[in-house]
Amino acid sequence: MEATQTALEPVSFETHPDHYKHLRLEVDGPVAKILLDIQEDGGLRPGYVLKLNSYDLGVDIELADAVQRLRFEHPQVGAVLVTSGQEGVFSSGANIFMLGCSSHAWKVNFCKYTNETRASIEDATEHSGQTYIAGLNGVASGGGYELPLACAEMYLVDDRRSAVSLPEIPYLGVLPGTGGLTRLVDKRKVRRDLADVFVTLAEGVKGKRAVKWGLVDGVFPTSRFEEAVQARVEEVAGKGHPERQGIFLDALQPEENDKEVRYRHVHLDLDTALRTATLTITLPDSLPDIPAQARDLGADWFPLRAFRELDDAIMRLRFNHPQIGLVLLKTRGNQDIILQLDAQMDARREDWFVHEVLLLMKRTFKRLDYTAKSFFAIVDQGSAFAGSFYELVLAADRAFMLDEDGVQIQLSVMNAGTFPMGNGLSRLATRFLGDPEHAQKMAALRSPVGAMEAEELGLITIAADDIDWDDEVRLAMEERVNFSPDSLTGMEASIRFAGPETMETKIFGRLTAWQNWIFQRPNAVGPKGALSLYGRPESPEFDWNRT
Amino acid sequence: MEATQTALEPVSFETHPDHYKHLRLEVDGPVAKILLDIQEDGGLRPGYVLKLNSYDLGVDIELADAVQRLRFEHPQVGAVLVTSGQEGVFSSGANIFMLGCSSHAWKVNFCKYTNETRASIEDATEHSGQTYIAGLNGVASGGGYELPLACAEMYLVDDRRSAVSLPEIPYLGVLPGTGGLTRLVDKRKVRRDLADVFVTLAEGVKGKRAVKWGLVDGVFPTSRFEEAVQARVEEVAGKGHPERQGIFLDALQPEENDKEVRYRHVHLDLDTALRTATLTITLPDSLPDIPAQARDLGADWFPLRAFRELDDAIMRLRFNHPQIGLVLLKTRGNQDIILQLDAQMDARREDWFVHEVLLLMKRTFKRLDYTAKSFFAIVDQGSAFAGSFYELVLAADRAFMLDEDGVQIQLSVMNAGTFPMGNGLSRLATRFLGDPEHAQKMAALRSPVGAMEAEELGLITIAADDIDWDDEVRLAMEERVNFSPDSLTGMEASIRFAGPETMETKIFGRLTAWQNWIFQRPNAVGPKGALSLYGRPESPEFDWNRT
Repeated sequence: MEATQTALEPVSFETHPDHYKHLRLEVDGPVAKILLDIQEDGGLRPGYVLKLNSYDLGVDIELADAVQRLRFEHPQVGAVLVTSGQEGVFSSGANIFMLGCSSHAWKVNFCKYTNETRASIEDATEHSGQTYIAGLNGVASGGGYELPLACAEMYLVDDRRSAVSLPEIPYLGVLPGTGGLTRLVDKRKVRRDLADVFVTLAEGVKGKRAVKWGLVDGVFPTSRFEEAVQARVEEVAGKGHPERQGIFLDALQPEENDKEVRYRHVHLDLDTALRTATLTITLPDSLPDIPAQARDLGADWFPLRAFRELDDAIMRLRFNHPQIGLVLLKTRGNQDIILQLDAQMDARREDWFVHEVLLLMKRTFKRLDYTAKSFFAIVDQGSAFAGSFYELVLAADRAFMLDEDGVQIQLSVMNAGTFPMGNGLSRLATRFLGDPEHAQKMAALRSPVGAMEAEELGLITIAADDIDWDDEVRLAMEERVNFSPDSLTGMEASIRFAGPETMETKIFGRLTAWQNWIFQRPNAVGPKGALSLYGRPESPEFDWNRT
Repeated sequence: MEATQTALEPVSFETHPDHYKHLRLEVDGPVAKILLDIQEDGGLRPGYVLKLNSYDLGVDIELADAVQRLRFEHPQVGAVLVTSGQEGVFSSGANIFMLGCSSHAWKVNFCKYTNETRASIEDATEHSGQTYIAGLNGVASGGGYELPLACAEMYLVDDRRSAVSLPEIPYLGVLPGTGGLTRLVDKRKVRRDLADVFVTLAEGVKGKRAVKWGLVDGVFPTSRFEEAVQARVEEVAGKGHPERQGIFLDALQPEENDKEVRYRHVHLDLDTALRTATLTITLPDSLPDIPAQARDLGADWFPLRAFRELDDAIMRLRFNHPQIGLVLLKTRGNQDIILQLDAQMDARREDWFVHEVLLLMKRTFKRLDYTAKSFFAIVDQGSAFAGSFYELVLAADRAFMLDEDGVQIQLSVMNAGTFPMGNGLSRLATRFLGDPEHAQKMAALRSPVGAMEAEELGLITIAADDIDWDDEVRLAMEERVNFSPDSLTGMEASIRFAGPETMETKIFGRLTAWQNWIFQRPNAVGPKGALSLYGRPESPEFDWNRT
């Protein structure tokens, strides 16, 4: 089982509402609706049937697409209703048979991706003025309740049978691990003893008790449900954002083969023998001024296109190239272009379109932070790690910089908090957590910095002159790719986010780690484990040692 | 391998400096010294040799004992030097061969215990006026560097060979997982890219570079090392606390057999068939007033004795009874006794001895929080869950309360912050995170509360009258012990600590979870894993998938 999935054809993360199999996206002025109507035989991989609105990666790719398009193509929308197009069931969560036949790496990457999609729903609610509301017009169990937990509000039909539940522990011996446990006690602030009862009740909680325990925000009888929820969504939406006019996000359509993935601005080179990849972003020679309506720049605007490409490339690296352990981050171009772009964007932050592009850049940098691969930034001749693009250096596990004339980095206003990490701090503040004064000084630094000074200031990791450069980088690469990949993943997850923790870092750091642990344990995935035997007549057999 | 260790005789957590095999505790006025001089053939279990000052659980039991005795028996001490009694090596960390031949459960419990000991060192530094300083008079690697990370300061000998290192990743394919990674970036605030380099450098970092990177607080040449470190310890100690006069902590010496562990106030009943235990604390009929010098109460003072017993019982539950999945928490006695005790202690908090006892109680409650077993508090006829003892209800995963005359709970000033959890909040504030106003109201509530009201106020989980009581509790118990133990561990670790995270919750929640994951992975513990093959001629073979 472990090997089959990566032998299948590569996953593509591109779709469009016209091609959705499982979702319907309806937009009506300030209100949008995402209807879950998952096609049973529409699984991304063979071997399972998506019954009862259960989902797999293919469904979540559509959901992520819908959330993204709502931001860019329908920015006038003020509230989004997420509800089901199937009778009696909102969603029964991640498909168990899909999980049962997936490799450990696939399970982990799938959960991470769904988590990121949910975080993007919360990001849209908080920062884009698009509030997500879940209308649970039927049973919502497991991931089918974790998705509404990512919405700002949720309402449940009170029909004596529809309940919310997190039955992973009683049924599967695993966790409500895609945000569920964390959002329960940290976002909804459900009392921990009630949460404890709730997550062990396979049948879940319904009606007024669900409201009392804080599991849902309200219940309505069947007769009034649709109307009441619609009214609430319209109330939240208000007039929406009529001043915003959307743009069309065209397909990226990269050329992909075994050796490379080539986009317009982003180029991913794969060295499968050395288990490394090189991600290069190339700047255009010039950039247009931002017009009165920034949206007139459209989907071709460099930062939008380049970061959509970068985001897509990261996804492909995760799912289609699991053996790649190390990614070199490179840039090519004139860094004045970036500094000019940063200044332009800074001056026009209030424009919804510029704002959305900055949010997309923020989310893409976070994808890097949450990717279980090592990143080395390579600051060499011809590179352009300035301003926004210097965030790549900050996001990297290490940065190597060539000590040579003309090789410089430069900070801009964009490094001072426009792209917070999951911990809520800028990457610069996180980097210099031990010396906030230095962090402030660096945030204000506007002059270009050469390698030796950059090393001295702590802005890069290692400076090397041209005599040492090749060896320095090559040896570090060879060393890196020969370490145990698991220990690197755990190490990076532990040191990338110093400082305060947020719900987001708790989900990606703590909850995910426990779930990954459990996903390895014989009690879940052994031949007699609960996940392996789900849906079969045998009962699981557990090793009772509490660990 | 997996089964052998639990078949050995039970672990005892009691020791005394007279019986130490591995440590020497020297006290000289305001300064104490803990010398690590680990006996190679003194391992707690057969099968490994404790070379190069490497440690196993037996060593850490002595260290925990020394830290505890310094607080109670030598309270005048103001600073503690931790250094090595062996030539050229401070400590090479946890013994790898011990880890290699240990069951997963043992590894996890061992790491948790060493983490708690280190947290107690930080607690003594912060709250007891006993500052720990590490004098690294030789190589400090792995856990041998994680221990000094728990000290307030550390100094390294500059002899051109002594380095600090965390070589777990390059050598073993596991993490510096007993606090190392977290303390590196969150306590010492080492820059993440330097931390990344450091933890992949098997040979470590020495001399001025170690100072520059923030890995140590200073270096001294061999000729001056002992003198310089001693001077610093004396400077920090100052006059110490000459007004404090210690007491002697006598041995608890419980009677232990397969069915029970019996202490003076604490009684642990084991039901191995049902995989449950009952932990009962019985109050004395009366308590003495606190005299002018509280220490005159000695080690027999009820709260000191009872919480030392409770602490010891939790340890035995973890290590000697791994199959116990559920612990019922019970109390017996007149709850006015506790309220009276709380009032007395509150009035005398400034007395060092009362203060120390309160700190011990705090640490013991945290042991419950960090224990991978489920806890149900049983508030029934004859119980005494008032004040300090109500913390047991708050620490439990659920609390059942009998709705009957005479069964009451009652809060005291001690529930309002005297015993913070690892997240820095009181258990009451954490419980009502979603309703801080209610939390404040409850913290001020002083009247006794019956079952129905307690349920309504959220102070317990489930109230039941005598008709339903037996069934309610029995069914919940039967259900609990039949769930997958791993999913319960992950669930409890995820919901017990809502709200803010601290270095402590990061260590026990996030870092530990990643380490546990890695401790299961074939890349570490499979037949060709790095941990399994350590010290053998073969090289490990890794599955290169990055997960």
